[in-house]
Amino acid sequence: MLDTMVWGGDRLTILDQTKLPAVTEYIDCFDHLRVKEAIARLEVRGAPAIGAAAAFAMVLGAKHIEHEPFLSQLEEIAADLESARPTAVNLAWGCRTVYELAAKLYGEGLRGTPLVKKLEAKALSIYEEDIAANKKMGDLGAALLPNDATVLTHCNAGALATCGWGTAMGVVRSAFYRGKIKMVYSDETRPLLQGARLTAYELAEEGIPVTCITDGMAAWTMKQKKVDCVIVGADRIAANGDTANKIGTFNLALAAKALHIPFYVAAPASTFDLHLADGSTIPIEERSPLEVKTFAGSVVAPEKAAVFNPAFDVTPADLITAIITEIGVITPPYEKNIARLLRNEV
Amino acid sequence: MLDTMVWGGDRLTILDQTKLPAVTEYIDCFDHLRVKEAIARLEVRGAPAIGAAAAFAMVLGAKHIEHEPFLSQLEEIAADLESARPTAVNLAWGCRTVYELAAKLYGEGLRGTPLVKKLEAKALSIYEEDIAANKKMGDLGAALLPNDATVLTHCNAGALATCGWGTAMGVVRSAFYRGKIKMVYSDETRPLLQGARLTAYELAEEGIPVTCITDGMAAWTMKQKKVDCVIVGADRIAANGDTANKIGTFNLALAAKALHIPFYVAAPASTFDLHLADGSTIPIEERSPLEVKTFAGSVVAPEKAAVFNPAFDVTPADLITAIITEIGVITPPYEKNIARLLRNEV
Repeated sequence: MLDTMVWGGDRLTILDQTKLPAVTEYIDCFDHLRVKEAIARLEVRGAPAIGAAAAFAMVLGAKHIEHEPFLSQLEEIAADLESARPTAVNLAWGCRTVYELAAKLYGEGLRGTPLVKKLEAKALSIYEEDIAANKKMGDLGAALLPNDATVLTHCNAGALATCGWGTAMGVVRSAFYRGKIKMVYSDETRPLLQGARLTAYELAEEGIPVTCITDGMAAWTMKQKKVDCVIVGADRIAANGDTANKIGTFNLALAAKALHIPFYVAAPASTFDLHLADGSTIPIEERSPLEVKTFAGSVVAPEKAAVFNPAFDVTPADLITAIITEIGVITPPYEKNIARLLRNEV
Repeated sequence: MLDTMVWGGDRLTILDQTKLPAVTEYIDCFDHLRVKEAIARLEVRGAPAIGAAAAFAMVLGAKHIEHEPFLSQLEEIAADLESARPTAVNLAWGCRTVYELAAKLYGEGLRGTPLVKKLEAKALSIYEEDIAANKKMGDLGAALLPNDATVLTHCNAGALATCGWGTAMGVVRSAFYRGKIKMVYSDETRPLLQGARLTAYELAEEGIPVTCITDGMAAWTMKQKKVDCVIVGADRIAANGDTANKIGTFNLALAAKALHIPFYVAAPASTFDLHLADGSTIPIEERSPLEVKTFAGSVVAPEKAAVFNPAFDVTPADLITAIITEIGVITPPYEKNIARLLRNEV
């Protein structure tokens, strides 16, 4: 499997996911601005991967602060990075985690290279802990799947959306290595086709059986191919379990509910935003109309037509069978059970 | 609005819908084989348009039969045309309607040009009656819409899917000219993008407000944009109301039901197949994997991944609020009400 990102001390090297699967190309980011650009352009995407990339970007930012006031400059960098994409809470979480450590160490008198070294170690631990968390989610989630499972997923919540292994696809990966996966149906996930370009690619490369479908085929596939469960990732989860994820997830959750198919969300604890009581206040990014009107330079819709292009939707908690995290599987009632599990973690 | 097809006496001239909206090009079909090819390639598509094109193809076929046995040759032509696409019942209906007239007239002693002239008149009446039926559906359907209506549709059940005016978009068109349409959301309808390329195009050209969305955005759009109803066309409707239509329709119907939004099917009486008790035996066409693996000529999925590419799905009758036909609006219980309305019509 390709590395989503590699830390090089003076740079963060990012796999350009906009070019997959045709071209494998890496981008060297020597400063936080290039990382921010990579996040905004979706060269790196997936909530956990964005969180780690943001942490490394904070380290690059801290490295380049040459004069006081150190903390207020670092805070500006964090705010700038956070503005790259509004929906995934992991972005802010990655920035804040590094900033808060910096503030603490600065308060203790640490300055310059020794301070930056500590921040670098923190970013690296976020990276490594993400992989470890995914493997834990994989273990916990795989246990929920039946033998000979037919699974349907949306977008890419795989190794490429994380520092490695994947969230929803981490569960599939863990289940596959236990001999439990019969087939994964991957929604192509328009407009940017992360399901076709990334999920189908990473699964096929690894020998995990995968079938591409268009997004409109999901409900019919669930019914005709006897899908056992739907598993998706998440970009932000409110205190009541309402879950923001890639546009199209809400469609799937409604279909799964109607067809009596379990609907699972797999996401690390960093995806929860307990400041939000429910999903109604999760900010939903709207992206360029060109994403819908064109593909690979070809115009597919008339110029005179308008476009609505939300990048995410919010799935109400009552459509979710369970939320798989690295610290446990959460089932309804979500408000109570999320608070109980995360009290010591967030 | 562009003509879907024009009868020229010695040819059927068909608008090549695979090239819209970028290129407006017509294809002259001098024999039934070229019409069959146009149907198989989706150069002409939409159940009612296919029905009329097939009727004209039968006339071209009859014209070119130079020796006896006339009827068995014409029957072979019908069987060949019917094999072009399996799901839309209108194709067989168009062929059978012309064949049955031919058999009757032949039995009465008619031969040669006088016989062909009668068949030509029949095909022209199918064409004209389709437009008249659409306008009737438009009147009946428009009455169901609230004022200031926000409507969501899928694929193209518009003027381009028929001989003119449209079925589902005929309802929208009629409502628009009564000042009742605020916005039409058009699912792009992957893999072949008939929603973006054809529906958005024909509505925008006519000044009817239209917004393009991807198929995965449908449920979120219904909720966020307060969609008043979903209207789609149909390719085949069983005796109990189960409806085959473009893949993605079942997704929409499930979402509409869950969100308490009326879900309407608009289709002429020729779309009913009363030989089928329910939708389980409607043949569902599966098309080339390349339609899913490529987008506007660019490869978007890995070679190693499999593809499932059903062109249609079946929406169970219990998800349908009403079926709008030219002879009346049918509501549940469908089995009883369809039989009652169609007894003298089919």
